[in-house]
Amino acid sequence: MVSPQYAAVQFRVRYGETDQMGVVYHTNYLNWMEIGRTNYLRDAALSYRELEEKGLLLPLTDASVSFKAPARYDDMVEVRTWVLQVTPVRLDFAYEVYRACDGQLLVSGVTKHVFTNREFKPLRVNRFMPELYEWLLAQQGGDDQ
Amino acid sequence: MVSPQYAAVQFRVRYGETDQMGVVYHTNYLNWMEIGRTNYLRDAALSYRELEEKGLLLPLTDASVSFKAPARYDDMVEVRTWVLQVTPVRLDFAYEVYRACDGQLLVSGVTKHVFTNREFKPLRVNRFMPELYEWLLAQQGGDDQ
Amino acid sequence: MVSPQYAAVQFRVRYGETDQMGVVYHTNYLNWMEIGRTNYLRDAALSYRELEEKGLLLPLTDASVSFKAPARYDDMVEVRTWVLQVTPVRLDFAYEVYRACDGQLLVSGVTKHVFTNREFKPLRVNRFMPELYEWLLAQQGGDDQ
Amino acid sequence: MVSPQYAAVQFRVRYGETDQMGVVYHTNYLNWMEIGRTNYLRDAALSYRELEEKGLLLPLTDASVSFKAPARYDDMVEVRTWVLQVTPVRLDFAYEVYRACDGQLLVSGVTKHVFTNREFKPLRVNRFMPELYEWLLAQQGGDDQ
Repeated sequence: MVSPQYAAVQFRVRYGETDQMGVVYHTNYLNWMEIGRTNYLRDAALSYRELEEKGLLLPLTDASVSFKAPARYDDMVEVRTWVLQVTPVRLDFAYEVYRACDGQLLVSGVTKHVFTNREFKPLRVNRFMPELYEWLLAQQGGDDQ
Repeated sequence: MVSPQYAAVQFRVRYGETDQMGVVYHTNYLNWMEIGRTNYLRDAALSYRELEEKGLLLPLTDASVSFKAPARYDDMVEVRTWVLQVTPVRLDFAYEVYRACDGQLLVSGVTKHVFTNREFKPLRVNRFMPELYEWLLAQQGGDDQ
Repeated sequence: MVSPQYAAVQFRVRYGETDQMGVVYHTNYLNWMEIGRTNYLRDAALSYRELEEKGLLLPLTDASVSFKAPARYDDMVEVRTWVLQVTPVRLDFAYEVYRACDGQLLVSGVTKHVFTNREFKPLRVNRFMPELYEWLLAQQGGDDQ
Repeated sequence: MVSPQYAAVQFRVRYGETDQMGVVYHTNYLNWMEIGRTNYLRDAALSYRELEEKGLLLPLTDASVSFKAPARYDDMVEVRTWVLQVTPVRLDFAYEVYRACDGQLLVSGVTKHVFTNREFKPLRVNRFMPELYEWLLAQQGGDDQ
C-alpha cells in the first residue's frame, strides 16, 4: 500500500437520512464518520469486525463536528478518514465529508477513542496487538497533509 | 391489573424522524411498534430487558404495516399494543398508532416473533417460562376488542 | 437497457445498524429497501430525486417484510428490487436482500405506494408522466422471474 | 415560569438505539440532545415547530459530545438543556444526559446554531422576533449554575 494520507469511501445519501428541512439530518454525519473509520481500517487490511472478535473495542470518548454545507438526498458523498493521533491507550481519527460532484466540503470532524476489552476495561494496544500499534503509529500525522 | 385489552404509550415525534416530505419517515413507525411492545410487557410487570437477561429472545420473523395518515414533527402520538396470538413457539403482536390530539389513526401493524435462546435456537416458552406463557395466553384475543 | 428483471445494489452493513442481539436491527431492512427502490429507478435513467422535484411523490401505503436470516456488521449485502405491479394510481415494489459472500437470502419484502403530488393528493401517473407509466408497465411481472 | 436554569425531559432507551456492544450507539445521544432542545423551547411556551412555520430555522454549525458512561436498553434517561450563549445571529445550547435511576452522568455536549430563514440565509433574530431574543438573552448564562 503506497502509504495513503487518508482512506476515502463514497456512497449515496439515503432518503431516510433527510429531515423536514430538506437536507441531511445532522446526526447522520456521525454515522458516516463510522463508515469512514471502518473503511480506513479495512484499507489497511484490518477489519474492525475482526478486532472486536479478538476482544479489542474502540468506544468513543469524544466527538466534534463542524457543519459547513448541507448534503441532500441522492448526493454522492465521499468520507475521508485519517489517524490524527495514537498512543498505547488512545486513538483519534479525523474526517472530512465532501460532495463528490463538485468537491464541496460538507463536514469536518474528530472522534476520540480508547482501546478497551469487551468489558470496557482499558487495554494497552502496544501490548495486546503490537503490530497494530506500530502500523497506527506509522500513519499518525496524516492530518498535516 | 384490570385485564387491559391493550397497553398504551405516548411520546412526541422527534425532528430526526421526519424526512424531506415533511412527515415521519416510514421506518420509524416500526421503531415505535418496538416501543409499544416493550411497554406492553412492562405494563404486565415483565421487562423485555430481563427476559433477554434470562436468555429469552423474541426475534422478528415477519412485520407488516399499513400507513393511513402521516405523523409530523412534535406531534404527540399514542401506540397501542396487544397480543394477537401466542403458541409455545411463536408470539404475534398487533399495533395501532394514533395522533393524540384528535385521535386520528395513523398506522396499524403486526409483528410476528419466535421464542429463541441467545444463539437464536427455538425455545418452547411453555417449558422455559410457564408463567409467562400462561399470562400471554390469557391476553390473547385482545384484537377483537 | 437490456430489460433487467431486477436492479441490484450492494453495500456494507453499518455498525450503527446493529443492535444488542449482535445482528442488524430489523427496521434497517426497510431503509435498505428504500435504497433498492432509489437504485431501481436510477438504473432506469430515472431519478426519484428528479421525480420529486417535478412534483411526483411515492408515499408508502403498506409494507411487509419477512426475516429469514440475520445480517451482521460489515457484511456486504445485495438488495434486489423489481416492479411487482403498476396501475395509473399505484405502484408496488418487491425486494430480496442477500448476503453477498454466500448468497444467503436474508429478507424478502413488498412495499405499496400511491402516486401523489406534493400535497399528498392522488395523481394519475399515466396522465402526469405517460412515458414513466409506459416504462413501469413494461417492467411489471418481474416477480415471476 | 420561575426562571429554570435548565429544562429536563425523561424517556426510555429504545431497543433500536443499542448496538452490538450492548450499549447505546453514540449518535443517538445527539438525537437526544435535539429532544432536549425541542423540550427546552416548549417549556418556554415556544414551539420549535411554530418557529419553523414562521420561517425561523436553527441549523447546526457545530456539535461536540463527551461520552462518560454508556446508557443501556430500557434505561430511563434525563436530558437537561440550557442556553449557553445567544447573539442576534447565533444560539448555543449545552446539554447533560443522566441515567435517572442513580443520577450517573452519561454524556455532556454543546450544539451551536445560526438563525436562518427557510433558504438558510442568516437572520438577525433581534429584528425578526425581538421578544424571542429578549427571552433567550434572559436565559443566557444558565451554564454557570
